[in-house]
Amino acid sequence: MAGEMVVRILPVIMSGGSGTRLWPLSTDRRPKQFHALGGECAMIVETAMRVRGRHGNLDFLDPVIIAGERHAELVSSQLADAGIVPAATVLEPVARNTAATAAVAALVAAELDPEALVLLLPADHVVADPAAFIGAIALAAPVASGHIVTFGIAPTGPETGYGYIHQGGTLAPGVHRVAAFKEKPDLSVARRYIEEGGYSWNSGVFMFRPDVMIEEMETGSADILAGAREALRTASRTDAEIRLGRKAFHAVRAEPVDIAVMEKTSRAAVVPCSIGWADIGSWAELWRFSPKDQAGNAVSGPVTILDGENNLVRSDGVHVSIAGVSDLIVVATADGILILPRDRAQDVKKLIP
Amino acid sequence: MAGEMVVRILPVIMSGGSGTRLWPLSTDRRPKQFHALGGECAMIVETAMRVRGRHGNLDFLDPVIIAGERHAELVSSQLADAGIVPAATVLEPVARNTAATAAVAALVAAELDPEALVLLLPADHVVADPAAFIGAIALAAPVASGHIVTFGIAPTGPETGYGYIHQGGTLAPGVHRVAAFKEKPDLSVARRYIEEGGYSWNSGVFMFRPDVMIEEMETGSADILAGAREALRTASRTDAEIRLGRKAFHAVRAEPVDIAVMEKTSRAAVVPCSIGWADIGSWAELWRFSPKDQAGNAVSGPVTILDGENNLVRSDGVHVSIAGVSDLIVVATADGILILPRDRAQDVKKLIP
Repeated sequence: MAGEMVVRILPVIMSGGSGTRLWPLSTDRRPKQFHALGGECAMIVETAMRVRGRHGNLDFLDPVIIAGERHAELVSSQLADAGIVPAATVLEPVARNTAATAAVAALVAAELDPEALVLLLPADHVVADPAAFIGAIALAAPVASGHIVTFGIAPTGPETGYGYIHQGGTLAPGVHRVAAFKEKPDLSVARRYIEEGGYSWNSGVFMFRPDVMIEEMETGSADILAGAREALRTASRTDAEIRLGRKAFHAVRAEPVDIAVMEKTSRAAVVPCSIGWADIGSWAELWRFSPKDQAGNAVSGPVTILDGENNLVRSDGVHVSIAGVSDLIVVATADGILILPRDRAQDVKKLIP
Repeated sequence: MAGEMVVRILPVIMSGGSGTRLWPLSTDRRPKQFHALGGECAMIVETAMRVRGRHGNLDFLDPVIIAGERHAELVSSQLADAGIVPAATVLEPVARNTAATAAVAALVAAELDPEALVLLLPADHVVADPAAFIGAIALAAPVASGHIVTFGIAPTGPETGYGYIHQGGTLAPGVHRVAAFKEKPDLSVARRYIEEGGYSWNSGVFMFRPDVMIEEMETGSADILAGAREALRTASRTDAEIRLGRKAFHAVRAEPVDIAVMEKTSRAAVVPCSIGWADIGSWAELWRFSPKDQAGNAVSGPVTILDGENNLVRSDGVHVSIAGVSDLIVVATADGILILPRDRAQDVKKLIP
């Protein structure tokens, strides 16, 4: 359809998380997106590097970053070190969940380049197959001028930690209507989804033309859109930095974009894809996704392991020496030292001092 | 016997160990005697505080410290902080085992106060009942002008990690001749010792008048005594600090005083005693001797434990958070982080980076 026509894509990277499930690496001061987890660079840098340059008729523009105000310096220094120059950095004075961020993304994109397609993506996801991701974006592009396209990850098992997307009829090659969004299921339901087929994991990545998102929010979540507009109207702007109006943004209703928009709109689409995606939400998950030695140990930093299997061991600096323990998570940073069995990774929050 | 007569006792504290079995706390740069293990203060300070002042007719003099040259500053700063002023600090340029140190102790004591009784004691032992120790010293005193008195610890079990002393006939109230020194036994032999009775652990603490030790060394280990004399003759002395002659002390034969002197002399005596003594040679032993919470955890420093039992957890600074592990040793210092099961404490040496 698009033929030789160049499609401009504006990546908008959401650096909103403050995940403490990866303490002591991830802290409120420096959440996981500012650490290297799945790759060589910090996740936010890997995210930006994944969607840049020209691929076929896709032209990725300099990204917009939406981040917490307190992480402004981290964002600018980490991106600068990687040679990435954001088109704009939007700073939120407080976290107000993803609907508010999506509204800000659409409004800022409409200012910058109303014809470009917004690719709204979290800063803290792993994509092991970036070429496949670009391929999925190419499939989504022809549809994204009239739909909000989600990326549905082909399940590798009956995961209970993700939401699911049930796909409907075909909209375009490789793109389906969304029949339904499903909340995180229990194990038996997840198994049924896998058996039935036509279900994929909701990756939380969205692609849309700004006016489509704005129209859908005007219908379903007008208050959030109005709040975001007011926060932008009262923002302080210097160079490419936009500090959202504090009072206005505080007042915005906090809701996930999935609930505020996606479950209400009739214009939701999904591109089922296999891109090596993961939202690493726990140390146990990181162990699963990490390369391991012959004994199954995933190691990072100065570490000695004697007679131990299937451990995740990370150190930021001090040498860690381990003998005779298996299936353990050991993480040592200047902020703390965590030790617990892999199958108790969900207890991290109880252990933060 | 001694009636009202005051007995002067010169403590000579041997700070020779460089135990790495307690890595990462104990390091060559700062061995265990310079850390608090059994008490509130560093072990060398606790050792000095245990034997000072006046107790009945025992008058403890300011101590002599014999330490490794590289620990000179640690010795002076730790003792100064505790208000202890050594009569002399002797610095060994290299470790030459305890016979050389005992020879130096006797020769220096003969200079300082030839009539005082030397109490030669390692800097890194725990004595949980210091009053009982003073009592044992009081029993030893009347005999120590003519014998080399050892302190035999009443066994609390068939330990295989200590040498044993087999006691002979009575010399004085509470003091026996030594029938034999026994090397570290295997478990069945240790059990036999306990059943038979009359055996005690060799604590490595000795009491003697300088001339007695010098005479016994002249007979049995004349070369070591001569080497120590030469090291003192060629020492550089400033105030109360004696730096042994480097060349001379290097040349001294390295042998334990037990072999060089005690097993040869006919003037060995033993005071069997129960003083809460321990030579903490491993993290597993430290756990055994440490106060514990209701779950059996021995904790030191900023530590959170959730659902874990019988662990030893120490941190010098960084907060350690642990869940769901038991019978583990966890030690975190700026030099390293050690994690291993209590029953593998002997593997520490393999884990030092």
